[in-house]
Formats: sequence, C-alpha cells, structure tokens
Amino acid sequence: MRLPIITLTTDFGAADHYAGTMKGVIMGIAPQARIVDISHDVRPFQISQGAYIIAQACRWFPPKTIHVIVVDPGVGSARRPILAEIGGQYFIAPDNGVLSMIFDGAEKVRHLTSERYFMQPVSHTFHGRDVFAPVAAHLAAGVPPVRFGKRITDHARLDFFRPTRTGKHFWTGLVLHIDRFGNLITNLHVDQFPGITTRPFELNIGLLKLARLIGSFSETPPGEVAAVIGSSGFIEVVTNQGSAAKLLGCDVGAPAELILY
Amino acid sequence: MRLPIITLTTDFGAADHYAGTMKGVIMGIAPQARIVDISHDVRPFQISQGAYIIAQACRWFPPKTIHVIVVDPGVGSARRPILAEIGGQYFIAPDNGVLSMIFDGAEKVRHLTSERYFMQPVSHTFHGRDVFAPVAAHLAAGVPPVRFGKRITDHARLDFFRPTRTGKHFWTGLVLHIDRFGNLITNLHVDQFPGITTRPFELNIGLLKLARLIGSFSETPPGEVAAVIGSSGFIEVVTNQGSAAKLLGCDVGAPAELILY
Amino acid sequence: MRLPIITLTTDFGAADHYAGTMKGVIMGIAPQARIVDISHDVRPFQISQGAYIIAQACRWFPPKTIHVIVVDPGVGSARRPILAEIGGQYFIAPDNGVLSMIFDGAEKVRHLTSERYFMQPVSHTFHGRDVFAPVAAHLAAGVPPVRFGKRITDHARLDFFRPTRTGKHFWTGLVLHIDRFGNLITNLHVDQFPGITTRPFELNIGLLKLARLIGSFSETPPGEVAAVIGSSGFIEVVTNQGSAAKLLGCDVGAPAELILY
Repeated sequence: MRLPIITLTTDFGAADHYAGTMKGVIMGIAPQARIVDISHDVRPFQISQGAYIIAQACRWFPPKTIHVIVVDPGVGSARRPILAEIGGQYFIAPDNGVLSMIFDGAEKVRHLTSERYFMQPVSHTFHGRDVFAPVAAHLAAGVPPVRFGKRITDHARLDFFRPTRTGKHFWTGLVLHIDRFGNLITNLHVDQFPGITTRPFELNIGLLKLARLIGSFSETPPGEVAAVIGSSGFIEVVTNQGSAAKLLGCDVGAPAELILY
Repeated sequence: MRLPIITLTTDFGAADHYAGTMKGVIMGIAPQARIVDISHDVRPFQISQGAYIIAQACRWFPPKTIHVIVVDPGVGSARRPILAEIGGQYFIAPDNGVLSMIFDGAEKVRHLTSERYFMQPVSHTFHGRDVFAPVAAHLAAGVPPVRFGKRITDHARLDFFRPTRTGKHFWTGLVLHIDRFGNLITNLHVDQFPGITTRPFELNIGLLKLARLIGSFSETPPGEVAAVIGSSGFIEVVTNQGSAAKLLGCDVGAPAELILY
Repeated sequence: MRLPIITLTTDFGAADHYAGTMKGVIMGIAPQARIVDISHDVRPFQISQGAYIIAQACRWFPPKTIHVIVVDPGVGSARRPILAEIGGQYFIAPDNGVLSMIFDGAEKVRHLTSERYFMQPVSHTFHGRDVFAPVAAHLAAGVPPVRFGKRITDHARLDFFRPTRTGKHFWTGLVLHIDRFGNLITNLHVDQFPGITTRPFELNIGLLKLARLIGSFSETPPGEVAAVIGSSGFIEVVTNQGSAAKLLGCDVGAPAELILY
C-alpha cells in the first residue's frame, strides 16, 4: 500500500525553524506520511512565484498527493485557508490566488473552518504550523475532506500568468519566473501558441528581438540569448551556460511581447 | 509502530556534502530511521542561533524524537559531545551551550565516550559524521542511552536568551534572531512579561520606540514597524510584507530595552 | 528488508521546482524508495564541484544505494546519459566526467538507451525529470541494470582532481572546493603524500607559505590560516572560526604548490 505523501512549498526559507516545525506537526499527527520538500525558497510574499512552482511540480506526483503551499502575506487577516481537490490531488493553501495556475474549472474548494483540526491556540502569524500542516496531516491520516469545512466557489483566482491579446497578431506576456540558471520563463505557453514552432514570430524582451526557437541550450553560442520551449511548455529565453537574466537585465514581471503571424 | 525520527540542525549549509554524509551514516546504521532536516543554514559558528532554532522546532515533534544539533566551533578541541534527555526527547550535540534554551532543570545529560558507537577513525574536523550521526543512529536502532557514556551535571549552560533586569520597570533584552522575512525576534517572552498585553509599555529598539502590540502583520501600514507576540511567544518587531531588520538597521544581538509599568 | 535509497545531487538550486519535480517522478514509479537530498546547490554547470560532493558523500551510504547526479551543462546535446556500477552502488548521471572521482577502474558503465524507462516525451532541457529520475526509480523498483542499455568503456574521465608532478619534490595541485566555512579543500590527498605528516614540507597557496599541519581548527589562532588533513583526507587550508578563502582571496581552481622532501 502506498503511504500518503505531503509536499511542502513555502517562502519560509531553509534557515529558519518554520519548515522543520511544520514537519514536526505533521509527523505527530500522521506518522505514516512521507514529507517531501518542493521549495522553501519562494521569494517572500511572491504569490505568483509560489503559484508557478507548485503548478510545475504537482503534476509529477502520484494521485492523492497532498500539497501544502504557504506563501501567505495575509496571514492573520481575514483571508481564508482552503483545501482544494483538483485532478485527483489535494492542495492546502491560503485563499490568495496561489493555486491559480492549477485550478482547472472543476476544482472543489473548501473553506477550512473546523478548528478541531488546527493546533490550538492558533497564532496570528504562523498558520503553516497551526492550520495548514495539521489539516494536511489529518487528511493524510484519513479524515475526509468534507469534515474540514464547507464548499465555496468564490475563491481567489489570479490572471497574472495569462498573456493579453493586444492585436490580431500581438500578445503581451511577461516573465513569470527566473530560475537558478538565469533562464527567463515567460507566460507564453506552446499550447496557446502552437504555431510558434512552424510560423515566423518575433519575441521582444528587454532590448532584444528573438525570431527563432532553438532545440536545446547547447545550440546557442556562449554570450548569445535564444528562445526555447522549456520543459514546462512555456517559452524561455536562455543562454548557453550563462544567465540570460543578467545579459538582458530583466526581472520577474518584465514584459515579453509576442508577434505571431 | 512509529519509526524512529532523527532531526538534523547544523551550520553545514545546503551546498556541501556534510549533511548528506551524515544522512548516509545514519541510514547505514539505522535503516528504519526517518531523517528530517530542520535547518542546515544556521549562521556558521552561531551557537545562539542554533539554540533558538532547535528550541522552537523540537517541541512540535513526537515523543522520543532524536534531535542532532551540530553547531560546533570547538570541533577537535576538548569540548565534550553529549546526549541529553529532556521532556521525553533526545538531543545529541556538542557541549557548548547550544541546548541552553531547551534545558529545563530536569535534563539528564551524558558525556558520549563509548567510542564503539563512533565512526573510526574519528576525524578532528567532522564530528557530525564521526560522532553525532552514528550515536543518533545507534540510539534509534535501540541502544539504550546508558551505553553511550556517564551522566554529567556540569554541562554548558548559556544565558544569552534571558533579558537582564536593570530597574524596577526596566529590562534589557536583545535581538535573538532575524528570520527570513526580516522579523526581529527578541528574547522578551510573553510568559515572562504577561502584563505587556494589558499594561502600558515601551520597547526601544534601534532608534525606535514602540508602545503598542498589534495582533497580526496585516495591521501594520506598509513601511511602519510594530511589535507583535510572535508564534513562539517572543516579542517580535515586524513590518507588513517587508523587512523590519532593514528598516531599523539592526542585526542579531542588538539591544531591546523594555519598560513595563 | 531495506528499502531502496535514491540520493540526489544537482545544481538545480533549492528555490526552483526542479528537484521537487524529480522527487514526484520517483515516487510515482518507486513508491517504496527513500529519497535523500545530498545537495542541490552545486554551482551551476560546475562538473568538478559536483564530482567532489558526490565522491565525498557516496562512500557513507549503504550498499546498493542509487545516486543520481545532475550537473549537466550539455543537456539536450549528444552527451550520453549513463548508469555506472561502482563498489556495489549505482550512479546515474550525464557522461561528462562528473563521476570521475568515483571511478575505480573496475566500474561497469552503461549507456542509457532504453527509452521505455524515460518520461515521454523527453524534453531537451530537463533530463533530470525525463531520464535520470525515472531510470533511478525503475532501478529501485527492481529493473536490472542490463535492461537500461549496453555496456560502454569510453565514458568521460576527467583529471582535474589529480595534482601534477612538476619536479622531484614538486607537485602542482589546486583548490578543488571551498566549503561553507571558507575552508579551501585542495586536491592533495594524504594517501598520495603520506610523508606530509612526518617530513618537512611547504604548501604555497595564494601569497602564503604553510609548513606545518595542525590537528584541528582550534589549534589556529584567530586570523591565521593553517593546513590540516581534512575529514576527506585532502589537505585543507583553514582558519579558526573564519573563512580562509576570504583571508587568502582564493577561489576554486587557484593553484596549490606542494614541496615535499
């Protein structure tokens, strides 16, 4: 039999006790659960980055995996804690849009209100420990979703990851994420622009105009940047063994204009 | 049946092989043990930071958890390796005060001297691998504490985390820790100063005077700092979605003066 | 019965989803495998650093451990993915020399060609997810090595970690790695220079000449650097509770000249 899996994606950093404390809470409630760190280095309070990371990682985990996402600038305010069932997996997070890239229109979302599954007293500043971790652990231990709270349908959905159409052949996208290598991951996805692999296009980013897709990093001469369809399907701007972000001087949120004929 | 849990808290960083090597040693001796990283990013040689992190995290782990703490500037010198039993859990660490915030007066401490439980030959520079990890693993595998060495009572106890009373209404504390978000965690604990929630007070830190406790981060206007009772019970100086440490220009060890009437 | 162990050593960083995604792939294929992070913070594209880290850590893991190493500047190019059996353990990596410090002359190396064990379609930029992780998981799940591809003998071997003899008493080595503490780990190993513990020597590194080995960090006065036989057997240049790398201004690759009479 498969043991339940709980993944953690937070902006708590790896230095503090916060992530370790969440693991202690989980192991106390659900000793059989397997805990997997996805990332604790989401930039502080960057909901869009947390949304990107969990959306990329979650699809590779087995059915019934429980994902806990704590990027929570509104902790202690009225923002709701939620449990979402999406595509056979579970997601526990603040209701601030951090699950926007995973919602598929068929998500079942519950507002977590059953305080018996929280650590008491609930602090005002660390719901990772007091709300999200214990709910994940109780779920892993067999408590059915319905017990945690009522269904809601007005959960937060953000649109940052969708490019805007600005003309017949024009779209304005943006840099969704910059990875450790300095690759610029745009929000332009090959599924939305399948023609990009066969038709002429222009991608304007920073001061640069790119008009060709390469197949892999190694096709780019050192010092030159190029566009590639990345491992997640998004168009990435990369350079061979170097940082495209540094070469272009772009940060997350920088515009990426696509012209596709 | 619960599998034994071994947690790791070190200043080894996440880049080097040191933490991974400790895990290999543990898995070779106690294959059934579950290994949990609390932090490997304690600032190098900062005993007080290690002490703070393990003290916050340990209480959330189940009984019988084995905590290994390696912040060990004196490795290779005469400082003793110890095993402490405190509140139903085990702590394996150098005898340099890193357990000071956990000692409760009833701790049973042993000097680890049974070399048969060490990796041989013991290096002069990596006791995490040669002493602390294998002792933790043998303990997890069922060796009783008494076999590792004799009881001692003169183990190191540090006082850095206790504020000093400097007058009838005056205490001098300090910044114990700065977390990833830039929150300044003082050593002023609500249990020692319960009146702070109901009586007028002044907290002087950096160039700032704070006189009010807020309930959560979200009550602070952006750019302003405020005091809050943090998730660990210590008074923290915070700002909403920003770094109080940067705003105040304070580092760990900066004084925090409390006047409480 | 021991559960299979899979370790991960990559340059993916801890912030991105890459390492988490590999874990998801592994858990989907081999739910019983135990996954251990050795390091995800190998400097980007630094094959020699990845080689050093896995070589130090692997020897402490139990027999049959499966090590996955992804430091892969040539991803998407013609470089081959390989599986090596060495000393009773398994190593899955790109064929770029990252296993050079582990090869013992008796290694059995296979070119991974059986695409049925890859995630399909194989991307051009993320073979950690599509090739290395799934092959490790299938191996952990019981697929015998022979099924993954044919034996090869012309795998890449690098020599960066071997000092050059430049005279009867002269060797030119280099700084192989700088650890978190700023210790400079050279490629001069005590097994190659056993005389260093008993005979006069000179070690020239940066602007410094060292002529004595100390036993442990604590023997060095603060602010002075000294040579020590490190926990891996390599000669290290260290200072007590400080960074020798900063004091000397040396980086990885800096020359270390040994004169041994």
